[in-house]
Amino acid sequence: MRRFEVRTTQRNQFVEITDKVRAAILESGIRDGFCIVYSPHTTAGITINENADPDVVHDMLLWLNREIPQKQSGFRHGEENSDSHIKASLIGSSANIVIDQGDLVLGRWQGVYFCEFDGPRSRQVMVKVVGTQE
Amino acid sequence: MRRFEVRTTQRNQFVEITDKVRAAILESGIRDGFCIVYSPHTTAGITINENADPDVVHDMLLWLNREIPQKQSGFRHGEENSDSHIKASLIGSSANIVIDQGDLVLGRWQGVYFCEFDGPRSRQVMVKVVGTQE
Amino acid sequence: MRRFEVRTTQRNQFVEITDKVRAAILESGIRDGFCIVYSPHTTAGITINENADPDVVHDMLLWLNREIPQKQSGFRHGEENSDSHIKASLIGSSANIVIDQGDLVLGRWQGVYFCEFDGPRSRQVMVKVVGTQE
Repeated sequence: MRRFEVRTTQRNQFVEITDKVRAAILESGIRDGFCIVYSPHTTAGITINENADPDVVHDMLLWLNREIPQKQSGFRHGEENSDSHIKASLIGSSANIVIDQGDLVLGRWQGVYFCEFDGPRSRQVMVKVVGTQE
Repeated sequence: MRRFEVRTTQRNQFVEITDKVRAAILESGIRDGFCIVYSPHTTAGITINENADPDVVHDMLLWLNREIPQKQSGFRHGEENSDSHIKASLIGSSANIVIDQGDLVLGRWQGVYFCEFDGPRSRQVMVKVVGTQE
Repeated sequence: MRRFEVRTTQRNQFVEITDKVRAAILESGIRDGFCIVYSPHTTAGITINENADPDVVHDMLLWLNREIPQKQSGFRHGEENSDSHIKASLIGSSANIVIDQGDLVLGRWQGVYFCEFDGPRSRQVMVKVVGTQE
C-alpha cells in the first residue's frame, strides 16, 4: 500500500491527484489489476470526474455548498462540520480504477480528485494496488 | 477486462445492464471473486437498485432532476451539463459485485444500472473480473 | 465470503458494524488485501464515517430525511419507499476497506456503518475478503 499527502487550502476544494495515483501504480510494478484510492478521513472523499474545464469543479462545489450548508436548524454536532460529514458520505471515501498494461484505465475526460470538505488541512491518500506483474 | 456498449435514448435514463454484466462474468470463467463495473464517462454513473418495479427508477430520476436542475444561478461550465457531472459523482462511477460459484451475488431485488445523465449517447461500460477459476 | 445479520429498529438508522467486519477479516486469515462490505438490499447502504460523536450520525440522517422526504409529488412507486431507494443509491451499496497486517486500515475517526433506510427489518451484510495470508 502506498500513501501520499495532499495539502488543501480551502474549506471545500477538489484537488486533482491523478498523477500521484499514476505514480503509485508505476512504483508498484503491477501491470494488470486495479487500485483502490482511499481517504482515511471522515470529512473528505474521493471522486472521479472531468479534469478538462475547471468550471465543472466550480459548479459541483457550488451545488454541494448550496444544498448542504454548514449551519442548519437541528444540527447537534459541536464541531460545526456536519455538512462536511454529509458530503463525505455522498461522494464516498474511495474510488476503484482498473489497471491495464501498467497504467490507469480512465476515460478521456476523467481525472481522480481528493475532495476536501473541511479544510484547509494536511490529508493522507492511500492507494492499494492489487494485481499481477505479468 | 471486458467492455460493452450501451445506447441511451434520453437525457436522464437508467438502463439495466445486469444480464450484460452476468455474461461478462461467465465469459471470464471466474468462479470465485468479484467484479468492478465501471463507467469511463464523467456524466454517467453505475448503481445497484431495484429492478422489479420500473416506478422506482422513475421516482429516483424525478428526485435527481428536481434537486439538481440543469440550469442554476452561478453555474459557469459552458457545456450546460454541470447537473450531469454532479449526478455522476453522487451516484459514483463504479459498483463492486461479489462473484460466487461463477455468478453475481445480488440481492433478490437488485439489478445493475448504467445511469445516463447527459444522453442520448453511445456509452461504454467496463467490467473488470478478478478472482480464481477454481 | 462471510455474512452476518443486522437487526434495525427504526425506519432510518445507521448501525455501526466495524467490529463485525473486523471479526470477518480475522476469521478469513487474510493478512494483506482488502474487503468489500456489501448490502444485498435496495433500500439500505454501506458508508464509512465518524464513529466518535453520535451527533454526526444524527445530523447526517436529519439532512437525508429533510432533503429526501418519504412523500413527494409525482412519486409513483406503490410501496411508498422511493425515498429509501434514492438514499440507498446516493450512499452506495458497498464500501472497500484495505487490510494490512491482518486488520482493517481505517482512519482514526472512521467506522463502518450499515445504513437502514426502510426499517425496522432484519438485514444481511456480506463481507468478501480478498488477499493473501502471507
